[in-house]
Amino acid sequence: MPMPPKLSEFELINIFFEGLGPQSKDVCIGIGDDCAVINVPSGQSLCLSMDTMVEGVHFLPGAPARKIARRALAAAMSDLAAMGAEPSHFTLSLTLPESNYQWLSEFSQGLKLLAEQFHFPLVGGDTTKGPLTIALQVHGFTKKGQTLTRSGAQDGDVVAVTGTLGDAGAALAILSQVNAEKCPEAQSYLLERYYAPTPRIKQGLELRALANACIDISDGLLADAEHIAEKSALAVEIDLDCLPLSDALLSEQGDKAIAFALSGGDDYELLFTMSEVNWQQLVKLDEERIYTKIGQVKKGQGVVVKQGAMNSSSGKLIAELITTKGYKHFE
Amino acid sequence: MPMPPKLSEFELINIFFEGLGPQSKDVCIGIGDDCAVINVPSGQSLCLSMDTMVEGVHFLPGAPARKIARRALAAAMSDLAAMGAEPSHFTLSLTLPESNYQWLSEFSQGLKLLAEQFHFPLVGGDTTKGPLTIALQVHGFTKKGQTLTRSGAQDGDVVAVTGTLGDAGAALAILSQVNAEKCPEAQSYLLERYYAPTPRIKQGLELRALANACIDISDGLLADAEHIAEKSALAVEIDLDCLPLSDALLSEQGDKAIAFALSGGDDYELLFTMSEVNWQQLVKLDEERIYTKIGQVKKGQGVVVKQGAMNSSSGKLIAELITTKGYKHFE
Repeated sequence: MPMPPKLSEFELINIFFEGLGPQSKDVCIGIGDDCAVINVPSGQSLCLSMDTMVEGVHFLPGAPARKIARRALAAAMSDLAAMGAEPSHFTLSLTLPESNYQWLSEFSQGLKLLAEQFHFPLVGGDTTKGPLTIALQVHGFTKKGQTLTRSGAQDGDVVAVTGTLGDAGAALAILSQVNAEKCPEAQSYLLERYYAPTPRIKQGLELRALANACIDISDGLLADAEHIAEKSALAVEIDLDCLPLSDALLSEQGDKAIAFALSGGDDYELLFTMSEVNWQQLVKLDEERIYTKIGQVKKGQGVVVKQGAMNSSSGKLIAELITTKGYKHFE
Repeated sequence: MPMPPKLSEFELINIFFEGLGPQSKDVCIGIGDDCAVINVPSGQSLCLSMDTMVEGVHFLPGAPARKIARRALAAAMSDLAAMGAEPSHFTLSLTLPESNYQWLSEFSQGLKLLAEQFHFPLVGGDTTKGPLTIALQVHGFTKKGQTLTRSGAQDGDVVAVTGTLGDAGAALAILSQVNAEKCPEAQSYLLERYYAPTPRIKQGLELRALANACIDISDGLLADAEHIAEKSALAVEIDLDCLPLSDALLSEQGDKAIAFALSGGDDYELLFTMSEVNWQQLVKLDEERIYTKIGQVKKGQGVVVKQGAMNSSSGKLIAELITTKGYKHFE
């Protein structure tokens, strides 16, 4: 198809966004009227979360459109996973400097990948002229009263995560240094983890009946563990020796891998707490070995980082993080 | 309170956005978790619409924070009004270059004005660093199957609008010329109409049981009438002599007033169609005289602009607008 030199807003929406993702019986009206109209199934609550990414702040200028679209949607969906919600539909506010046909085509394909995989239609939004900014609102359904929150952790709970930690943070370090097209295998793996995080929707649904508290790790393990600690009015103890690290991260960063796992953001893995009994049940079903126990909920406040705590009564105290404003103690 | 030099994202949300607007029984979880969680009342559908405004594109650089906040929310709410929806809650993605305390305080007050007036709580969103961009998603409820759309116009329907047309367009012309602080009364009125449009929520609810089609006028009367014509596969005939014009617009723009009423955007009034019988019923209840009949739905396509059509069998043909891409004929 020849590239139209300049698309109107209506043409742009028609070509790239209308009908993006599969049809859903819950969507009465999609793109094309003043509002989208949705029916929430009986007995379900609606979960919603908005996420914004700005060029030059959340991704590098000139980053590939398909990758940033996929990443932005995955990051937003991660909030649905953290609540144990089933994705239902999403909206997009796309601000862009010009209506570049090729860029838009790749951008919409990036969204489409996840939209089709998760039966997650685009139902509305806005397109405007301005500095490249992507705001997505994702919506999902949970059974009424069965939503996972940050505030439900119980004293004695196991603390666990999905996947591996620190990969995306290490990818960002790579992106700021080298040409991403020419990097060895480990770097490619980390970059893939950065650009194409897996929304842990399946795990969120699995955890819904078992976990007491859950959050997605977007700001880094310590910062997000702090949110659970604060909202649950308890302490989250993390054992450094137990953090799940990818081979790629270890080979790229060596001793620094732990620091990326603790503080690197953008992993979009889930951090959750549950009773020991439920944990045993979860582990039995975990054929992919996606879940790793990394600590315990205890009386107190903030995040306590230890070494060897799992294998002895106390372990060596490494740090106590009381608020997200800073470390109280680090040695 | 002394101004903190720089606010973190968490502080900023706590101070300016948490608890903005009244509490609602339908909001199970508001700001502070991975998602907001909403219960949609039984028998109701959820309407949602996203609207984005960018500094330098949708409002002038340096425009007062309180005014742009109020205007952005009113403009977004106008889409709920056009569907006949009752506002339930909204989300905000705010991208801003720096966390300026005074600016944020005024911005949140601008949102609060409408949030309190319409019992419309802010339940979530995102704040990011970048060029000033305001994306709002508004949500509302309608009875299942009773949503007003653009596609329901019937041959023979009365075409009507709320309020007066062209004021906001004329205000924009003023804003690009003079110091807004020093303008005569008529200009002040027009500027108020631009900065503080009234979301026609009450009228949307009134129209729900009576109108066949409805849209809000954001792009200008002709462009938005075209949407109804296209979606309903009929022609919308508009009589120039019937357009409701404010005294301020007439005194400021004289002969040009009509052009602003036809093509000026940003009025956020409602354009709707209904049977003659329903129109008579609506007019009887219209104590504020907010509704004006401006034309008729006919067989055909596009928008037909006439003069004197209401008082004679045909009237003088002024223009036929077939698509939003341009005028087929204008004399």
